Amino acid sequence: MRLTCDKLDLLNAVNTVLKAVSTRTTLPILECILLQATPEGFKLISNDLELGIESNVKANILETGTVALKAKIFSEIVKKLPDNEVEITVDNNYYTTIKCEKSKFNISGQSGEEFLQLPKVSKDQSIKISQFNLREMIRQTIFSIALEEIRPILTGELLEIKNNTLNIVSIDVHRVAIRKTDFNSEFDNMMVVVPGKTLNEISKILDTDEEKDVTIYFTNKHILFELENSIIVSRLLEGDFPKYEQFFSKDYDTLVKINKKELLMSIDRAALISRESKKNPIKMTIRDNSMVITSNTELGDVYEEIDIEKEGNELEIAFNPKYFIDALKVIDDDYIHLQFTNSHNPCIIKQVDGDEYKYLIVPIRIRS
Amino acid sequence: MRLTCDKLDLLNAVNTVLKAVSTRTTLPILECILLQATPEGFKLISNDLELGIESNVKANILETGTVALKAKIFSEIVKKLPDNEVEITVDNNYYTTIKCEKSKFNISGQSGEEFLQLPKVSKDQSIKISQFNLREMIRQTIFSIALEEIRPILTGELLEIKNNTLNIVSIDVHRVAIRKTDFNSEFDNMMVVVPGKTLNEISKILDTDEEKDVTIYFTNKHILFELENSIIVSRLLEGDFPKYEQFFSKDYDTLVKINKKELLMSIDRAALISRESKKNPIKMTIRDNSMVITSNTELGDVYEEIDIEKEGNELEIAFNPKYFIDALKVIDDDYIHLQFTNSHNPCIIKQVDGDEYKYLIVPIRIRS
Repeated sequence: MRLTCDKLDLLNAVNTVLKAVSTRTTLPILECILLQATPEGFKLISNDLELGIESNVKANILETGTVALKAKIFSEIVKKLPDNEVEITVDNNYYTTIKCEKSKFNISGQSGEEFLQLPKVSKDQSIKISQFNLREMIRQTIFSIALEEIRPILTGELLEIKNNTLNIVSIDVHRVAIRKTDFNSEFDNMMVVVPGKTLNEISKILDTDEEKDVTIYFTNKHILFELENSIIVSRLLEGDFPKYEQFFSKDYDTLVKINKKELLMSIDRAALISRESKKNPIKMTIRDNSMVITSNTELGDVYEEIDIEKEGNELEIAFNPKYFIDALKVIDDDYIHLQFTNSHNPCIIKQVDGDEYKYLIVPIRIRS
Repeated sequence: MRLTCDKLDLLNAVNTVLKAVSTRTTLPILECILLQATPEGFKLISNDLELGIESNVKANILETGTVALKAKIFSEIVKKLPDNEVEITVDNNYYTTIKCEKSKFNISGQSGEEFLQLPKVSKDQSIKISQFNLREMIRQTIFSIALEEIRPILTGELLEIKNNTLNIVSIDVHRVAIRKTDFNSEFDNMMVVVPGKTLNEISKILDTDEEKDVTIYFTNKHILFELENSIIVSRLLEGDFPKYEQFFSKDYDTLVKINKKELLMSIDRAALISRESKKNPIKMTIRDNSMVITSNTELGDVYEEIDIEKEGNELEIAFNPKYFIDALKVIDDDYIHLQFTNSHNPCIIKQVDGDEYKYLIVPIRIRS
C-alpha cells in the first residue's frame, strides 16, 4: 500500500473511527484501525463487535493494500503531524512508514485478515433526517437510559416511527423521556432499540449543521447511519421495549406553568442540601401562585419560592432532584407545563405549546 | 452577626480563600471558612497550617460577629445563589441563615474559637512586583520542583534578591529552571524558599493585569503576599537550597540556535515512540545545519529533522523528552539557544538575546 492524503482529512477520519475501537478487549485485533486502499478509495475501519465505523479519506492511491495498525499509536501520530500532506507506505511485512514534512515514523502493522468486517446491512428500509435534529433528539433523551443491565433492553433507546412521527424514548425505573419529531415516512410502523453507547458515539459524530442529513437503514438485527464520509453500523438490542404510552395519563388534577430556568436553579440549589443523603428528597408545595421547594437534612435546610400559574388542586409532592435537573437541563423553552394527579403519581413535564417532548418523573413517597 | 453584601464580591472571596482549605484533615476546623464581621469590615479567612488566606468583602455590617462554616457547603451555596444582594445572619448558636432573592438556606456553624488565626508577619522587609510578572515567573519555573520529598527543600522554589535582580529557581534531580527579572530593591541579598503548593495556589489568585502589583513581605519563617483585597501567608521551607549557579558552566563546545516551536513539536512527536518504555530516551544528533531527533523502541521508530544554526562541535546526546517538553512549553520566544559541552554534560536552554530564563537538563547516557 502506498498513498498520500491530507493530514486534516486523515485526522477527521481517525477521530471518527476511534469511537468504535475497543480499549479493553481480549481480542487484540479490536484495538486496531484497518486502513484499506482499494481502487474505489481509501478508508479507515473500526469494529468493536457492537459498533462498527467506516470513514472515507480523500487520497491519492499509488498502490492498493490493507493493513491493521494499533489505533492508539496511529491516532496519536496523526494528531501530532504537521498540517500538511501525509504519505503512508506499507511493505510486504506490514511495516508501515508515515511521513509528513521532515517527520518520519515507522511502526509495525498486521495483515488485517483477522479484522472483522462490518456486517452487511440491506438497504431496503431507510429514513432521512437532519443530523442536527437527530443529535438534539439523542441529547434530550439519552440521560434517562438505564445504566444497570438488569433489563438490558432499557440500556438502549427506542426509535419508533408511528403515524408520520419519529419518537425517541428512553426509560429507567424512575423516569421516562420522549422526544418526537414530525416526519414524512413510507413506513406505517417501525420500532428498533438502539444501544445507548451507539447513540452516544453517533451524536458526537453528527454535524451541528441543520442542512446536512443522515440516512438511517434498518434491518431486524442492525441499524446503519450513513453520513457524508462515514457509515456507522450497530447491532440492535433484542427484547420487548415497555409500552411507554401507558405511563402517560391524559388526566391531571394540577397543572402548573413555570419558568424553566427558575425551576432548574431552585432545584439545583435545593439539591445542595438534599444530595448528601440520598434518602432525603426535595419537597414541592404547590399553591395558587407559587411553588415552594424545601429540603431538610442534617446539613441544614433550604427554602425556595417560585412564581407560577396554577390550574386545579394544591399539592405536596417529593422528588429525587437529580431527575428534574437532568430533564430541565436539556429543555430549551423558557416556560414549561408540569402536570400532576396526586403525590403518589408521576409528574409529567410537557411543552406549553406543542408536543415535542415529554418527561415523566416518579415521586418519592413522603410520610404525611 | 448580620450583614449584606453582593453575591459576586462574596463569591470572589470564597474562591480565593478556598485555596487554603484542607480537604483531608484530622482537624475538622481546617475544613471551615471563618466569616468575621468587625467594625473594620467583613472578611473570610482560611488556614490549612501551611497556607493561610484572608479576603475582604465589601459589606454592609448590621451586627458584628464571627462564625466558622464548613467550606464545602458554604462555597457551593454561594456559587449557586442568584447574582444579587446576599444577607447573612448568624444567631447565638451559630445557626446561619443565607438569603438571596427568594432563596433561603439555614446551615449550622461553629464558634470559630478553635480556628487558627493567620501568623502575624512583621512588615519590615518588602518588595513590590506586578502580579502578572510574578505569575509568569512562577508558571515558567514551577514545573521543575521536586515532587518527591526526599529532599524537602526541593519541593519549593527559591526566591532570591541579588544585585537588583529577582530570581526564581526550581531544581529537581535532572533539571534546573531559573527565571530572572530586573528589580530595584532596597536589599542587597535575600533568599527564601517557598513551598511549591503555595506558589501554585497564589499563581491562581494573581491577576493577569500588568498594572496591578503585589507586595511581598518576608520574615525568617513566613512570606506574606498582599493583594488588593486579600493577603496570603505561607510558612517557608527550612534548609539549604543548592547553590544553583555552580551547575551552569559558562563554557560550551556546541551552540545551537533553533526554532522553539519546531523543536517542541518534533520532541513531542518523538516522545510518542519513546514514552512507552521510560528507559528509551530520544537521541539528538547535531550536525552543521540540522538537528536530527530519533527514538527507537519496540513500538517503532521515529526520525525528525530540524534546520538549525550551529557553532562548534557536532554532537550526539540523549534526553528524557519530558524535561525538554516541560521547559519549551513555557518559553514564549520564537528562537532559543541550546548550549552543550559533550554528551555527558547538561544542555542549557537560554534566551537568544537576554538573560530572562535558563533551563538546565541532564542527559541520559547512551552506549556508543
